[in-house]
Amino acid sequence: MSKNQIQPKIDPTILVIFGASGELASERLIPALFHLFDHRLLPKNFTVIGFSRRQFSDEAFRKRVKVEHKNWPRFAKQVFYHPGNFTSTEDFQALAQRLHDIEKRGHSCANRLFYFATLPTHYASISEDLKKSGLLIGCQIHKRKVRVLLEKPFGLDLQSAQKLDGTLGKYFQEEQIYRIDHYLGKETVQNIFATRFANGIFEPLWDREYVDQVQISVLEDVGVNERGSYFEQVGTIRDMVQSHLLQLLALVAMDVPTGLSAEEIRAQRARLIGSIRQPSKTDLQKYLVIGQYQGYREEPNVASASRVETFAATRLFIDNPRWQDVPFYLRTGQRLTKKSTSISLHFKPLVSRLFGTKHPLNKLIFQIQPNEGIYLELQVKYPGFGVRLHPVRLALGYDAFMAPEIPDAHERLLLDFMQGDQRLFASSDEIEAAWKYIDVLKKYSSGKKPIEYEPEGAGPKQAEKLIQKDGRQWLN
Amino acid sequence: MSKNQIQPKIDPTILVIFGASGELASERLIPALFHLFDHRLLPKNFTVIGFSRRQFSDEAFRKRVKVEHKNWPRFAKQVFYHPGNFTSTEDFQALAQRLHDIEKRGHSCANRLFYFATLPTHYASISEDLKKSGLLIGCQIHKRKVRVLLEKPFGLDLQSAQKLDGTLGKYFQEEQIYRIDHYLGKETVQNIFATRFANGIFEPLWDREYVDQVQISVLEDVGVNERGSYFEQVGTIRDMVQSHLLQLLALVAMDVPTGLSAEEIRAQRARLIGSIRQPSKTDLQKYLVIGQYQGYREEPNVASASRVETFAATRLFIDNPRWQDVPFYLRTGQRLTKKSTSISLHFKPLVSRLFGTKHPLNKLIFQIQPNEGIYLELQVKYPGFGVRLHPVRLALGYDAFMAPEIPDAHERLLLDFMQGDQRLFASSDEIEAAWKYIDVLKKYSSGKKPIEYEPEGAGPKQAEKLIQKDGRQWLN
Repeated sequence: MSKNQIQPKIDPTILVIFGASGELASERLIPALFHLFDHRLLPKNFTVIGFSRRQFSDEAFRKRVKVEHKNWPRFAKQVFYHPGNFTSTEDFQALAQRLHDIEKRGHSCANRLFYFATLPTHYASISEDLKKSGLLIGCQIHKRKVRVLLEKPFGLDLQSAQKLDGTLGKYFQEEQIYRIDHYLGKETVQNIFATRFANGIFEPLWDREYVDQVQISVLEDVGVNERGSYFEQVGTIRDMVQSHLLQLLALVAMDVPTGLSAEEIRAQRARLIGSIRQPSKTDLQKYLVIGQYQGYREEPNVASASRVETFAATRLFIDNPRWQDVPFYLRTGQRLTKKSTSISLHFKPLVSRLFGTKHPLNKLIFQIQPNEGIYLELQVKYPGFGVRLHPVRLALGYDAFMAPEIPDAHERLLLDFMQGDQRLFASSDEIEAAWKYIDVLKKYSSGKKPIEYEPEGAGPKQAEKLIQKDGRQWLN
Repeated sequence: MSKNQIQPKIDPTILVIFGASGELASERLIPALFHLFDHRLLPKNFTVIGFSRRQFSDEAFRKRVKVEHKNWPRFAKQVFYHPGNFTSTEDFQALAQRLHDIEKRGHSCANRLFYFATLPTHYASISEDLKKSGLLIGCQIHKRKVRVLLEKPFGLDLQSAQKLDGTLGKYFQEEQIYRIDHYLGKETVQNIFATRFANGIFEPLWDREYVDQVQISVLEDVGVNERGSYFEQVGTIRDMVQSHLLQLLALVAMDVPTGLSAEEIRAQRARLIGSIRQPSKTDLQKYLVIGQYQGYREEPNVASASRVETFAATRLFIDNPRWQDVPFYLRTGQRLTKKSTSISLHFKPLVSRLFGTKHPLNKLIFQIQPNEGIYLELQVKYPGFGVRLHPVRLALGYDAFMAPEIPDAHERLLLDFMQGDQRLFASSDEIEAAWKYIDVLKKYSSGKKPIEYEPEGAGPKQAEKLIQKDGRQWLN
């Protein structure tokens, strides 16, 4: 980080990762924590404890999650491992004892943060065991906090999400619960908010009068790989649309918040997601395309007759004064020609149409990955005699910043978690609003056979037709 | 030019340059014509005849104006010289004979175009002699045209401009008269028009509701050099503000034309210039700064007690529904720190001011010279933790175009002159509207001593104060 970075003030912290033997911990979380440490962004008193069934000594665990870096040994001293079963109260009592020992050694009581990097099925028993072992009562001397961070998906439909909220509600207040969607930690995603609300020129254009359409694309080149059994349970609509795409939608379409508090921002996002028009069966017949890439059914842990979708495209509307009748086109899929995540606003042509109507629309493009940046596509005069229009992109690449080091999304979100900043985490209201819409899609598509599409292409042709029949086309 | 260029269809043409022994002809016009020739943009039958008092043979004149290029000898065959006096009818009769001879040789009658690269004092007698020698009757077989092109300034005040129009009106119709302002031929200047009217996103922002201020700066690093005697007659307000700055103002502030015809575009420009609020004496006391660079009075042909201004800055308002109460800040001067011409629109902050009001305003900048381009200055989130805003410029440099070759302004305007396209030339109405405003400035400043300023600086400090007292600052 540059020296311009904000220096966070964080209380002493003990972070427990449940499911620490999994890939998420070794590939993402520990490297992110080490990077924060190496940039002096962690609190001075910081400890991370891995917890899962597999047996490791502290040393063996450190070796397993090691980051190749000269400063690793200094950080490794703060990394511990505690083997245990999620359903064993004794194991949690032993964990509690370990926390007390660490706090005693550190001459300080600490915030207790729990990262649930496990299947949602374990959330209830982990919470219950945390309670029984007294770990949910934070160290009282300095009124330290207890917080819990949960991986997506949060439930599999509205009913299960509400049930999960009910369960967690027995142990935690909403302000203690951090539902992670790592897309919200991405730099360009956060910049959507800043761009919209720190500049005078966008908000006047940001409505049905000037916007012709909005597109959100989250395209993956990889397939499900080792995630077959997970994917068979959820499919693309739940895995991607319910979380990433609707969160991006909320950011790009939400109303102006009255302030920057987490409550207000989360409330505005939830309000937007709650304003998505519930599509009719006829809407979905015309404007929902689900696909499955050729070869999906041969992936490990995938049923040979699976009808789980690996691609989804749809059109939706938002029933509010700002967006009434503006189409939002969403698409996402696995095993496509390239990895690319973008949001684009396509603006209507000038009313007077002095230069005719055949020129491409102005576009504001948030390119989230790869090549993070913001682009404004305009028509300008091509240099030379006569007046010939030519589309150009005004570019803000991140190389515009002097030696920028863009924090990884997990780093960002872990730091917010430690600081107690919920703005980039989904609220219970957001999650429920999202499921209300997703449930309609899932109910309609349930049991329907997805359209097969060739790997490394653009997905099913029907997804092209979906937008073409409106006289539009996907951003290239 | 790229092969994408428009291939103009131009009738056979004879171009007579009066004042051909001057620098304008040798430094600008002949090179521009040669470049057009070399890019096959001139008509097949094209002849240029230099005319002025000095004695040259065709060969000597060709040598004088020669462009170092392998194709020059082919072009040189089309270049002739005719010595003569602007007040001698016989000399013009001989010129007429020469034109007839050329037409006879070319087996074609031609458009006759006259470029008055002389002091305005000669315009009347040249026109009269052209008439007497029959040159104003274009070759009638193919109804060829006669057109005349005049250098700025067009008069020295409203009265003299009207008188000049009256004089020219005896010989020419308005559609035959091309009043050149070479700024209008510059690529970025033309792009102001295209950018405004070919894009949907600018026009909604282009008014008093969203624009806080507009700035127009035409800064020169050079002094008057050899132009002392000319400059002593006119000064910066007449030389620069009356022409370049008010034309730039017209382009950036005019209303949307109903079509692309020269009549309509010129009428809209004239209407805008005519809507400039006539400043009161109090306005000018506060908001007109005139300066003179140290050393100006030692320049050749400059009076040792000269009070002629070489710098001017002012604030003006436009009395129409679009711009009521939006300040336009204009400044121009010689011998400043750097050469830079730009127009910038500074947009108001977002009404909700979510991120406070201390951030720089959004700006749309047309950089006309040097580094031609269009820039949009925004606030974005600086990469990293927290939310820290950072101003960035989205850039459209001309290197965005594949191997662009930007035509020189004189080339562009000479080609339009040959094609009979008046859009980039000022109409009589524009000129008169400009003088009405300029006369008020000149009347107020007449006899006032300009503020001395140091060469290679930013001009008089009072020009900084002029804008600072409104809580604003000049674009850097």
